[in-house]
Amino acid sequence: MPKRQVDMLLKNASQLLTFSEQLHPEKSIISDGAIAVDHGRIVDIGKTGELESRFESDETLDVTGKIVTPGLIDCHTHLIFAGSREQELDMRLSGMSYMDILRSGGGILKTMYATREASKEKLVEEGKKVLDSMMLNGTTTVEAKSGYGLTVEHETKMLLAAKDLSKQHPLDIVPTFLGAHAFPPEYKDAPDEYVRVVATQMIPQIAREGLAEFCDVFCDKGAFSVEQARNILVAGIEQGLRPKIHVDEFANIGGAKLAIELQAVSAEHLLHSSSDDLTQLSRAGVIPVFLPAASLTLMEDRFADAVTLLKNGLPFALASDFNPSCPTKSLQFVLALSCYCMKTPIIEALRALTLTAAKALRKSHDVGSLEPGKKADLVIFDVADYRFLLQHLGVNLVSKVVKRGVVVAEEGRATRAKSAD
Amino acid sequence: MPKRQVDMLLKNASQLLTFSEQLHPEKSIISDGAIAVDHGRIVDIGKTGELESRFESDETLDVTGKIVTPGLIDCHTHLIFAGSREQELDMRLSGMSYMDILRSGGGILKTMYATREASKEKLVEEGKKVLDSMMLNGTTTVEAKSGYGLTVEHETKMLLAAKDLSKQHPLDIVPTFLGAHAFPPEYKDAPDEYVRVVATQMIPQIAREGLAEFCDVFCDKGAFSVEQARNILVAGIEQGLRPKIHVDEFANIGGAKLAIELQAVSAEHLLHSSSDDLTQLSRAGVIPVFLPAASLTLMEDRFADAVTLLKNGLPFALASDFNPSCPTKSLQFVLALSCYCMKTPIIEALRALTLTAAKALRKSHDVGSLEPGKKADLVIFDVADYRFLLQHLGVNLVSKVVKRGVVVAEEGRATRAKSAD
Repeated sequence: MPKRQVDMLLKNASQLLTFSEQLHPEKSIISDGAIAVDHGRIVDIGKTGELESRFESDETLDVTGKIVTPGLIDCHTHLIFAGSREQELDMRLSGMSYMDILRSGGGILKTMYATREASKEKLVEEGKKVLDSMMLNGTTTVEAKSGYGLTVEHETKMLLAAKDLSKQHPLDIVPTFLGAHAFPPEYKDAPDEYVRVVATQMIPQIAREGLAEFCDVFCDKGAFSVEQARNILVAGIEQGLRPKIHVDEFANIGGAKLAIELQAVSAEHLLHSSSDDLTQLSRAGVIPVFLPAASLTLMEDRFADAVTLLKNGLPFALASDFNPSCPTKSLQFVLALSCYCMKTPIIEALRALTLTAAKALRKSHDVGSLEPGKKADLVIFDVADYRFLLQHLGVNLVSKVVKRGVVVAEEGRATRAKSAD
Repeated sequence: MPKRQVDMLLKNASQLLTFSEQLHPEKSIISDGAIAVDHGRIVDIGKTGELESRFESDETLDVTGKIVTPGLIDCHTHLIFAGSREQELDMRLSGMSYMDILRSGGGILKTMYATREASKEKLVEEGKKVLDSMMLNGTTTVEAKSGYGLTVEHETKMLLAAKDLSKQHPLDIVPTFLGAHAFPPEYKDAPDEYVRVVATQMIPQIAREGLAEFCDVFCDKGAFSVEQARNILVAGIEQGLRPKIHVDEFANIGGAKLAIELQAVSAEHLLHSSSDDLTQLSRAGVIPVFLPAASLTLMEDRFADAVTLLKNGLPFALASDFNPSCPTKSLQFVLALSCYCMKTPIIEALRALTLTAAKALRKSHDVGSLEPGKKADLVIFDVADYRFLLQHLGVNLVSKVVKRGVVVAEEGRATRAKSAD
């Protein structure tokens, strides 16, 4: 039988971590593995000998001694902004809380002023640097929230910048509207009026222009109330924007229950959620998204309770929460925090950064596991066993990143521009 | 006046963090800075315009937009070993303690068996990989402890490997004898007999061959008692090996008081030390060395109390504790943990990784600050203000590393072999 010609044949992987849905993640590991890639998608996956007997390619990628995982998916980021907040760490170390800093005009509001002042082009330029760094560290899909504009004009500008980046950069960007990130100073004394603007002006325009897939709200003490969050998320649902929600980061005000009520795609942060809230969320099909780098950088002295979910066999996702006060672009760093601070096994943390993160973006039909039909988004790590991913803390272990079948990063350098979809 | 010709003129640094002894570290920052280097040493330091009027060089290093710090000093590592312990993280996550793992034949003893089996050449080969990674991340001086041999023969082999590495690699290695790292199985039922072997056989031979500068003991519950530690450290002192000591990592059994009694150079870990112990140590001239990556990776749920020392204006050092169960080679990672987990300002953490780390190795006459006469060991970071060092967590920000006046690493790649001393 003649061999089928494909665009790329990856072979000799010491381990392929497939995270295929039906199997326990450890059972889904293929040793001496190979992947056949054609037209940017995975055609087949299996043992090297087996695939070599059925496929041939002008481009073979020999990854002897290395492991391959699905491209990492960063399902919660504030990718787009201008300015920086490097002075706030010392403020926090001197005892000011996140909310103290916000009330003093720092925090989200400082970034809001800088972002409003910036042109769309400037936002694209800054975002591109961040995406490059994320890509070099193994990320292939990035959610990007708005939320530093807080007017129709500037929220739209942020989402247009995300759209431009998605066209220009090899990584895929999934846009989320987060007009309800903070109350802008213009509405300081009329918060419900701002909620009305978000629900009746911003959401319709953003939905009309197709600028976002999701609508998100920062529902917490000092931010948007459950009632305000409900109004905004329902307005989003009516316009075709699926709900996501920031809850229980600083206090438990009932946001998790709202997430269940609205059948949100995901609920994120969850530092102050009870065990019952967490299991109920996950059982209701709302993906809990944990952001341990935010716990670390805000010095919240607690991490979300992933162990309760693991004990119950329930899924959760992990993400970076990349933003000016939580500036990590490396999901390998998040992996380490998940294991050491949240006490999750490495394999579970990796599933949370791939398959379950894809589900938190409603993209698991397309990415998140190594299975035929899915995009050939792959990370080749320079270790022979996945457990060595935590044997080099603080060091980038990515050897190559493949995005839709094209090598886009190699040994810490970007190699190619965006491939055709 | 004719300009003086020097080997290298570094100029246009947005900040030079000099850490010169006499000044508060923030007051010691020079903006638009330059450094004149000759014969591997710093000749002068100041504003760019000023130095350009007095020096010229065929090799100028324009570091516009970047900061320069002294080369980072990793004053507590277990650099030399064979084998790996990647399976122990899952053991710890399943509830086994460090001491449980050690008693079951894992931990230090597992590494001991692998290290005894390895040839000196193999240890050098493995150590070189680690040193390269440390160098690429900004480290220029590395302490290296023995302690996985636990016989005269194998402890000597480890220290000979360190000596070979010091000759072959650009980084400087400072050797420490740690025969009292654990009780080897042969002396399981006769611990005092092992103490006698360390004190009367190992120490004399190692001192005679000039293989170590320091003698260290793991003094803790489940390890060496205060009395055993005293016997060993006194034997070391008599043979010219200055004392260092691991104390209070798992329990406070009085090791800090022993460190003061013996005027140890440093006392390390200090997780269970009281505030009084810490201030008394530091006031007595014993440098407290904190190892936050060990707290993280052993999941000890506590970090050492640096804040008490800062409040009292007392110095402390930071180090990686690189070893098979704490595998970080990046002092940038340790910097982040110091700030976020130990709540130290960035500038204080940087001093702890440079000047005070040099003191913990009795090398501050030679390295640890940017001052005339000291070695030209420099790190050029790709940020314009030191506070941005924490704005890219998990990413290597080193642009170039200069060791004794020679660029040894550049943009994540090693560039040159060892220069002449």
